Amino acid sequence: MSSEQTQDRPIGIFDSGVGGLTVVAEIFKLLPGESIVYFGDVGRYPYGGRSRETITRFARQDIGFLLEHKVKFIIAACNSASAVALDKVKEEFDAEILGVIEPGAKAAVSVTRNNRVGIIGTRATITSDSYAKAIQKRRKEVKVFSLACPLFVPLAEEGYIEKEATFLIARDYLKTLIDVDIDTLVLGCTHYPLLKKVIGEVMGKEVRLIDSAEETAREVAAVLSVRNLMRPSGGQVTHKFYVSDVPEKFSQIADRFLGRTINNITRVDITRY
Amino acid sequence: MSSEQTQDRPIGIFDSGVGGLTVVAEIFKLLPGESIVYFGDVGRYPYGGRSRETITRFARQDIGFLLEHKVKFIIAACNSASAVALDKVKEEFDAEILGVIEPGAKAAVSVTRNNRVGIIGTRATITSDSYAKAIQKRRKEVKVFSLACPLFVPLAEEGYIEKEATFLIARDYLKTLIDVDIDTLVLGCTHYPLLKKVIGEVMGKEVRLIDSAEETAREVAAVLSVRNLMRPSGGQVTHKFYVSDVPEKFSQIADRFLGRTINNITRVDITRY
Repeated sequence: MSSEQTQDRPIGIFDSGVGGLTVVAEIFKLLPGESIVYFGDVGRYPYGGRSRETITRFARQDIGFLLEHKVKFIIAACNSASAVALDKVKEEFDAEILGVIEPGAKAAVSVTRNNRVGIIGTRATITSDSYAKAIQKRRKEVKVFSLACPLFVPLAEEGYIEKEATFLIARDYLKTLIDVDIDTLVLGCTHYPLLKKVIGEVMGKEVRLIDSAEETAREVAAVLSVRNLMRPSGGQVTHKFYVSDVPEKFSQIADRFLGRTINNITRVDITRY
Repeated sequence: MSSEQTQDRPIGIFDSGVGGLTVVAEIFKLLPGESIVYFGDVGRYPYGGRSRETITRFARQDIGFLLEHKVKFIIAACNSASAVALDKVKEEFDAEILGVIEPGAKAAVSVTRNNRVGIIGTRATITSDSYAKAIQKRRKEVKVFSLACPLFVPLAEEGYIEKEATFLIARDYLKTLIDVDIDTLVLGCTHYPLLKKVIGEVMGKEVRLIDSAEETAREVAAVLSVRNLMRPSGGQVTHKFYVSDVPEKFSQIADRFLGRTINNITRVDITRY
C-alpha cells in the first residue's frame, strides 16, 4: 500500500469508557486534520478494578475491533489497560500501538527538578507499578510515590468537578503525597484532567501537574510526523464513535469530557472480537 | 424429589458484586440454619449504569449458574437486576426467584402514614420506575418520589461511610426529597444500608428508612416457612461464594459488608452460562 493511502486512514483510540475522550480532545486540538475512530467499552467499564487477565482480554478485543476499521495507529487511552496489558498485547498484533504511560513518564522525567514524582491513578494502574518502572528506566534516581484514588473516576463522571466534597476527598487522598515533597504529579488516569483544578489547589502551585492525555497527543503528533503518517491537509475529516452498551449515557458524559456534542455513536458487540 | 431433599438445598443469591452481601448478612441473622450459594458478578460490575438488555442477559446467566448448584430458592439481591430484568427473566426459568423490589415496596406501603414515599437507587433502578409501580399496585394513592444517587455505591465500596464528604454529597442528593415532605425512604440499592447513618442524619428522625436487604430476608423467611422449605435444624451449614473476577478485592470488601471474613471464594467464568 502506498504511504498516501496509509496517511488517509484514521487514528484508532480505545478506552474503558468515556475517559479516553480527554485524549480525543487533545488530538482535536493538536491534530485537527486527523480522522478518529473511538471505541469506548462502556459495557464493561470500569477496567481499573479488574484483574490483569481480564483487562488483557478486553484490550485484545478493543484492538481487534479498531484494526477492523483500518486505523493507521492505535492509542490505548486507558491508563489501566496501558499499565497492565499493553506490553503483552502489543506483541500479538502487527500494529503501531501507543499507551498513555510512556508519554506521561517521559514528561514527568523532563519536568521534575528535585527527582521526586507522584503518580495518581486507578488501583490497577498503581498496583502494576508501570509508571514507576517507565520513569526509572529513563532516570533511575527519580523517586516515585504512587497512590490509587478510586473515587476520582466516579466524581469526574458525575460532574462533581469543583464541589466541596470533591475537595475534601482530594485532600484525604493527596495528603500523603504532599508530605513527601514531590514537585511533579502525573494524572495517571484519563478521567483526572477533569479534576485538575481541585487537584492543583490541594497540591499547591509549586507542584507541576502532568496530564497524560495531553502528553499522549503530543507523542502521537511526533510519531506520525517522523513516520510520515500525517494526513495531508484538506479533504473530509470524519470521526466515528463506537460503544459496547447503549450510546445515550456515553453521549451525555461525552459533552462534559469533549466540550462539544458528538453524533455518530454506534453500539457494537465487542465480545465478537 | 422428596420435600426433605429440597429443604436441604442451599438458597442462591446473586448480585452485580458485593452489594448483595447486605442481603446475605440479613439471611445469616434471620435464617442461621440455611446454606447459601452466592454469586457476585464483580467481573461485570456495576449493573446500575448499563442498558436493560445487557442487565437482562447478565441476570439470565447469573440465575443459570445458581440453578446448576441446585438451589431451592433464588434471590436477585441486585436492585438494578430486580428492577429492569426480573419480570422477563422469571418467566424463562422453572424456579422460585425473588427480587428486592417487592419486599421493599411492601414495607414502604405498610410504614408510610402520609402516603409520600421516597426511593433512592442507581440510575437503572430509578429509570425503570419499578418501585413506584410496585408501590402503586399495592396502594395507588401513595405518591412516590424517585432519585438516582450514583455516587453512593463507590462511596460505600471505598469505605467512605461517615466522612464529611459523604455527608455533603448526601445533602446535595437528598435535598429534593426533603423538600417534598416524604415520611418514608426506601434504600433501593443493596449498597446503601452501609450509608444508613449519614442518610438518616440528612433526612431527619421523622423519616423512616426502609432497608431492602432486611425486608428481602424477611420475605424469604416467610416464603420458605409457608412452602415448608425451611431447612431442618442441625447438620452442617455450608456457604459458598463465587465471583466472576479475582476474589481478592471481593474478599476485602466483603469483610466490611458482612462484618465477618469469608473464605471459600471461587472464581467462575459466568459467560459460559
